[in-house]
Parts: sequence; structure tokens; C-alpha cells
Amino acid sequence: MTLYINLAEQLSTRIEKGLYRPGDRLPSVRALSQEHGVSLSTVQQAYRHLEDLGLASPKPKSGYFVPFNRTPAQLPNISRAAQRPVDISQWDHVLDLVSLAPDDGILQLGRGMPDISSPTLKPLLRSLSRLSRRQQTKDLGYGSLKGHQALREQLSRLMLDSGSQIPADEIIVTSGCHEALSVAFRSLCKAGDIVAVDSPSFHGVMQALKGFDIKALELPTDPLTGISLDALELALEQWPIKVIQLTPSCNNPLGYIMPDTHKRRLLALAQRHDVAIIEDDVYGDLAYSYPRPRSIKSFDEDGRVVLCSSVSKTLAPGIRIGWIAPGRYLPVVLHQKYISSGMTAQLPQEALADYLKSGHYQPHLRRMRSQYAGNRDVMIEWIRRYLPEQTRLSQPHGGFMLWLELAEDFDSQRLNRLLLPHKLIISPGSIFSAAGKFRNCLRINYAQKPTAQLEHAIQLLGQCIQQLMSESL
Amino acid sequence: MTLYINLAEQLSTRIEKGLYRPGDRLPSVRALSQEHGVSLSTVQQAYRHLEDLGLASPKPKSGYFVPFNRTPAQLPNISRAAQRPVDISQWDHVLDLVSLAPDDGILQLGRGMPDISSPTLKPLLRSLSRLSRRQQTKDLGYGSLKGHQALREQLSRLMLDSGSQIPADEIIVTSGCHEALSVAFRSLCKAGDIVAVDSPSFHGVMQALKGFDIKALELPTDPLTGISLDALELALEQWPIKVIQLTPSCNNPLGYIMPDTHKRRLLALAQRHDVAIIEDDVYGDLAYSYPRPRSIKSFDEDGRVVLCSSVSKTLAPGIRIGWIAPGRYLPVVLHQKYISSGMTAQLPQEALADYLKSGHYQPHLRRMRSQYAGNRDVMIEWIRRYLPEQTRLSQPHGGFMLWLELAEDFDSQRLNRLLLPHKLIISPGSIFSAAGKFRNCLRINYAQKPTAQLEHAIQLLGQCIQQLMSESL
Repeated sequence: MTLYINLAEQLSTRIEKGLYRPGDRLPSVRALSQEHGVSLSTVQQAYRHLEDLGLASPKPKSGYFVPFNRTPAQLPNISRAAQRPVDISQWDHVLDLVSLAPDDGILQLGRGMPDISSPTLKPLLRSLSRLSRRQQTKDLGYGSLKGHQALREQLSRLMLDSGSQIPADEIIVTSGCHEALSVAFRSLCKAGDIVAVDSPSFHGVMQALKGFDIKALELPTDPLTGISLDALELALEQWPIKVIQLTPSCNNPLGYIMPDTHKRRLLALAQRHDVAIIEDDVYGDLAYSYPRPRSIKSFDEDGRVVLCSSVSKTLAPGIRIGWIAPGRYLPVVLHQKYISSGMTAQLPQEALADYLKSGHYQPHLRRMRSQYAGNRDVMIEWIRRYLPEQTRLSQPHGGFMLWLELAEDFDSQRLNRLLLPHKLIISPGSIFSAAGKFRNCLRINYAQKPTAQLEHAIQLLGQCIQQLMSESL
Repeated sequence: MTLYINLAEQLSTRIEKGLYRPGDRLPSVRALSQEHGVSLSTVQQAYRHLEDLGLASPKPKSGYFVPFNRTPAQLPNISRAAQRPVDISQWDHVLDLVSLAPDDGILQLGRGMPDISSPTLKPLLRSLSRLSRRQQTKDLGYGSLKGHQALREQLSRLMLDSGSQIPADEIIVTSGCHEALSVAFRSLCKAGDIVAVDSPSFHGVMQALKGFDIKALELPTDPLTGISLDALELALEQWPIKVIQLTPSCNNPLGYIMPDTHKRRLLALAQRHDVAIIEDDVYGDLAYSYPRPRSIKSFDEDGRVVLCSSVSKTLAPGIRIGWIAPGRYLPVVLHQKYISSGMTAQLPQEALADYLKSGHYQPHLRRMRSQYAGNRDVMIEWIRRYLPEQTRLSQPHGGFMLWLELAEDFDSQRLNRLLLPHKLIISPGSIFSAAGKFRNCLRINYAQKPTAQLEHAIQLLGQCIQQLMSESL
């Protein structure tokens, strides 16, 4: 039994014995770490496990509490086993979503959009404004291909939080994580190659594979611990897999954090079969528990992990700043970045460097984590109130996305057609799969602060779902 | 005989007969157009032809003059005939150039950098500053995938100047022309495909082909009229060419403007062999003569021309705004743009839309054209003064690049090693060729206003060239 499971069992015994009662505060992470002589992250994992069992509930900045008499909703099913690598479809449905103009009044309930109204973002806007007020003509010129030096230094420091020591010189700034992933795939794969992915998986990645004629091998993925390592091991033996691509920390769309033991084992598998890993860490800083989860990259010894990230989820997508830490693939990644778009715009890089350097990022993160954790609970509450009882739900440990699974014959694309006249739309599950699986699933965003309007939208969503389900009877 | 050659001969007869004498102003374009009943653009072509023969010299805003007793420098040789499609090399030399930080004090004499110190750019900086001062959080969000609507409307109007009527809805905004070209290639080609290119050709394109495993078929290119259409015709019969890629208007690096008759014939060839054309128009607005040359796109009837452009050469590269008008390939180009980097940053798009809408662009262009045309004459003067007599020179009709050809055994990469201790560097010719041809050539930028420091740099360049040439004796 692993350390964290062991600790979790001891705690659950104490709770069941009534040592801690509903509403009680559970011991702090630090205290348990000292009491049991285990690391802080082991205690975190134990608490996350208890959370999944419905035995502990985190309150940001206050610690863990025993919840009041509450059974968690059922989890989504583990996605079906890998069968064979497939070509990617579903572009039309993605296009429908991304083509909606931001100002046409449709509430995009499923979009990967953070809350950008937080006052803790003001310093970033101020930096942008101040820098452009300088009106320095050099801002109009070409910058360095790798990116603004001061920004890369800040990013290097930031990555210490996920356990990685990556010098600024081994970081390449990109136009969002979108470009980072695209450049990573083009650096490591050719047309016809096979990439193993978690499933469901970010639709941007699915489309990149489609665009580059790469085949996706979708692996069964546990909604709490991520990609099935046994399935991966089998797949690595069976198929000439070139790259493993996944989002292990605060997964999109499932919200799980892959345990460190899994991350290590995954890396060992990659080493044994000599394949590269493309790790998407774009939600990693938004874990609700402290310290944030380690990246797979932080365990990497031979430079085979290509870490892609951005501030699009933690701060704001509009400034289009992402980065790659490409490990041993630095030369080819730099070439592909040059080809992709040349230099990245200078001004937003400087503004972001300024924001990070002035210490605004951590307070912002604390605020957003706390907001998102709180929003999650409200959103789950609403969904259990307004949606059919049998709705299965993910249990996000970070980020701002919820994954819903409905009856097997449910069609979330039909749902969207029903929602659209109400100026409401969700992200249908099928776009998160290469082969269009998960038609009975959908993704919902809970980044925005709960309002009566949002509650009404969920109510409407519930009505439309009920309507579809009664039609299909 | 074509109309413009006919007109040019009549004018040259008048000059030779002494009707116009050195220093005299030649008839205006409008006057000749009326007198001979031909279009303005035919007269322009005639004047360009006379310029190439050393019989006319343009003075921006004043018209054409008979030059004082001046033989133009010899033109570079027509590049050697196509032999077979090749893989692209030379990345190391490109990387050396693009990796130089803008602030390490090296004068990059060969870089594709416009003069960004012009006061006519101030309104763009002011727009940027004003828009970020609003500190609207919506600027931090995702915009539309195709790009900011107001900007696309402005670009649609702008393209009327090159003879194209393209609705805003058929324009996709990108992160510079670099991304536009990259997206265009990925939309139209697969690994192993063959693309016919002018030669010499922009090194960014060469590297894109390399990165996508596309083979380049380099076609003989005339330094005054561009790609050889006879050679192209032969090549189209001999090879399964997928795309023709070229920069026909104010070519980089040769500066020629392909005559309209050639543009039409090229398009007819493309139609007959059913291949697509990727037209790079990034320097087109910088033609020294008015009206600016028509794009190949403007003659396109069946949507096979994919026009790529940006404001990186006309305004400023740092704001990273380019665009594609993809014709019939719109759906696949939009998909590849989504994959490449998702949305383009919002703020610079709004600022550029503002700048264009307020009418600042045309006065800026007039100023830059006039400046660049004047700089060209000074730079040619210096080169003839300080460089070996046998140096062959391009005769740019637009843009701000000069192409130099030295003795056949000259090595411009060795030249750079000699220049670097003097904090000076040129763009070696070999990076403008897939196979590393043009080692005896180099590109020089004359965007900056002539200064004593710049003259000194050219003097130094001359000395280093002499040194290398005497060593090789």
C-alpha cells in the first residue's frame, strides 16, 4: 500500500470513529506531515483521496473539514479501453464553438475561459498600459527568437513551484500554449505517427493531431488518477507509439491530479520504451491544494519531457503568452517555433515579466484557486439540484472545468441545438475524443462567480436535458 | 512587343536625341498615359524599364528625371536553372542571425527590418497605449478565430490598392506573415511534396519547407522580372509540383516587380496545371512608384491564389499582425490557423484597425517609400565607392533590400566571421537558397536613414571584402 493510501485510511478510521465530526476541521497538512513523518505532498494526496471518498472537504486558506452528511455524486465511468490508433474527426463541432464571436451574447458555458474580471489582474493591464505609454519604438521591432530574457527568467523561477529547475535559456516563449503544443507535435512527430493520449482530452490537441495527420491512441483514463498505466504499458508493447501526450495536473476536462507515484511510473515506462512525453501543464498552477502538484517534467532525468504551458488559464488568454521547456529537443523545437510564427510579440512579454517580477502572480493565484474551489461546490450543488439524478460528475481538484456524463444514449450535440435559442451553449463531449466518443458527456465552466443568472442557465440546461431524455423514451 | 516596351523605346529615343537632357524632368505618368492612350501602370512599367537601363531616375513626389551621365552597376546573374527538387539546409546560418539579441550592439546590415523610428508610426503607438489604458478586461479574453472584425474590414479596403476585392469575411488574421506562410504551406502541402520557388527566396520560407519536409524546386529568376516562366512551364511538365510560392511585388531579396503580363501568364500556367500559388505580398505596398503593383491575387478567378501579407515591413514587425486571403482554401486554412496558435492577440489588432481607419497609413507609406527610394540611391553610391568594382547589384523598385553578387569563389559566410569583431554582420546569400547556393552573394538593408556611421559600416564592409578577395588570390 502506498504511503498516502495508508495515511488516508488512518484518517478515515478516525472520522468513522467520530474523532472528527461533520463540520470539524481536520489536522493541518503540516501537522500530519510531522506526526507521520511523511512529505507534505503525501499528506496532500491522502486528503485528495479522502475528498474523492466524500470524507474531507477543502476550504481554501482554512484547511480540510469533515463534510456534513454528503454523498458525492457518482464519478464518470473510466473511459473505454484503447482499441487502435484512429484519425481525428470532429473539427466542425470545434469550429462551431470557436467561431462564436465574443460579443454575440451567447453564454458559452463550456468554454476554457478563466475569470478575467478579478482585480488582481489590474496590475497586468497597468503594466501593458505603462509600457505602451513609453511609446518606445524598440517595442515595434523584432525581439529575440527564444523570447524576452526577463520573462524567461521569471518563468524559470515560476517552474520551481512544480519541482522543475529549468534555466531561462532552456525555455522558449510561444503565442499561447496552443502554439507550444503545435510546435511540440511538429518537432517530435511526422504524418502517420501514433500519439497516445488521455481520454477525454483537450480538443485543441485533437485538432493538432488531425491537422498534422497523426493518429491518436486514446487510453482508458480514470476520472481520479488519470491515464491507465497498465493500458499504456500494453499499448507501448503493441504499437509504435512516438509520443505520450497528457495533462496530468488539474486535467482538462476531468480535473484530476495524477498522483506522483503514477507520474514516476509513467516516466519510467516512457524511458523503457524510449518515447517522448508532451506534458500540458496549463492548469497546474490552479490546484486547490498547496503546494501545487509536481509536473512530470520535474522527475525527468534525460530530457524526454517537453513541458508546454501558458498564462491563458491562470491569468488571461488575450495576451497570448505561452512557453515550452523542450528538454533534449531544444534545437528542433526552436526551429519549429521559428517556422511557426517567428518571434513572439514583445510588449505583452515585457508586461508579463513585470507582473511576475512585482509579485502579483501568487496573490492572484491564491484568490483564483479559492474562488474556483468555492465555485465548484456551488456548481456541483446546482447540477445535483437541476440535472437528472443519474448525472455523473467529475471531482475537480483544480482548474475550473466540470465533466458531466449522462445516460449512454444521450446526445450533447442535440442538446446544444436545443440550448442555442436560449443563447446558451455547452462544449459537447465528442470534441474531446479523436473518434467522437463521449457524445453523452459535456464540459461546463465554473470560473465565473455564481450569480442568479448563472443559476438560471443551469436550470435551463437541466430542463433541456430532461426534455431530450423524455423524447428519447 | 508589349505596350510598355514600346513606350520605353519611344522615350529612350527622345532622350538619346537630346530632347531631354541630363537633369531634365521627364513627362509625368499621367501626361504620358493621356498622350499615348495607355494605362498609368503601363507608363510605370515603361519608366521602370528605363530605370533599369539607367535612362531614367525617379525622385519621389517629383517624377522621373534624366540621370547625369551614369552607367548603372551590372545586375546580378540570372540564378542557375532548376535541376531537381532538393531538401533544404542552412538552418544553422539562419539561427545565427535570428538569435542575435536586438540589444547586443551588433549592426545587422542584412536584417529584414524596416525603419521603425518614423514619426508617422506614433499614432500606432498612441492607439496601443490608449487602448490598453482603457484597461478593459475584455482585451484579456479570447477574440474571434478569424481575427478582429474591424481590422479585417480595413484590410479588405487596403487590398483594393493591389487590385483585389476580398470581403472581410475571407481574410484571416495571423501572427505576422511568418505564421501566414507557415499556415499556408501546411494547408496545401504534405511531407515529400514539391514546391516551386523563386531563387533567391526569403529564408523564412526555405526554413518552413525544411520544417515540413517539403522539397524546394528553385527556378531561375531574372533580377528585373522575376521567376522564369519558361523554366516554370518546363518544371510543371516534369515534376508533380504542388504549389508555386513567390514574392512577385518588390521581391525579397532582389527588389524587382514582376510585370503584370508575367503575373497573368504565371496564373494561366498554374490554372493549366492545377497548382496553387502562395503569394507573399509583404513588401508590395513599398513600391516606389504609384500606383502600387497589382498582386497576382488580383487576377485570380478561381481562388487558387493564397495571398499572405503583414504590416511587419510597412509598419512594424513587433506588433506581429499578418493575414491570409486563402481563396478556395479558406476552410483548411482556418483549421490550420486554429492549430497553429488559436486566436491572434486582440489588442494589437484593435490598435492597427484604429490606425488604418484614422487614415494614418497612406501618409506613412508615402514617407517610407520616398525615404527608401532615396536611401537606395545613397546606398548604391556608397557600394560603388567602397566595394570592388565588379560587385553586381540588384535594382530595387520597392522595399529596402539590396542584393550584392561578388566574384564566383567569394564566401559571404567567411565575410561574416571577418565582420563580427567589428560588430557588423550581413545576411549571407546561402540562406536564401534551399541548396545553399549564392555563397558569393549577400543582402543589405537600406531602411535606415544614411548616417556617417552607416557609411563607415559600408566602408568597413568594403575593406573586409577586399581583404577576403586578396587572400583568395
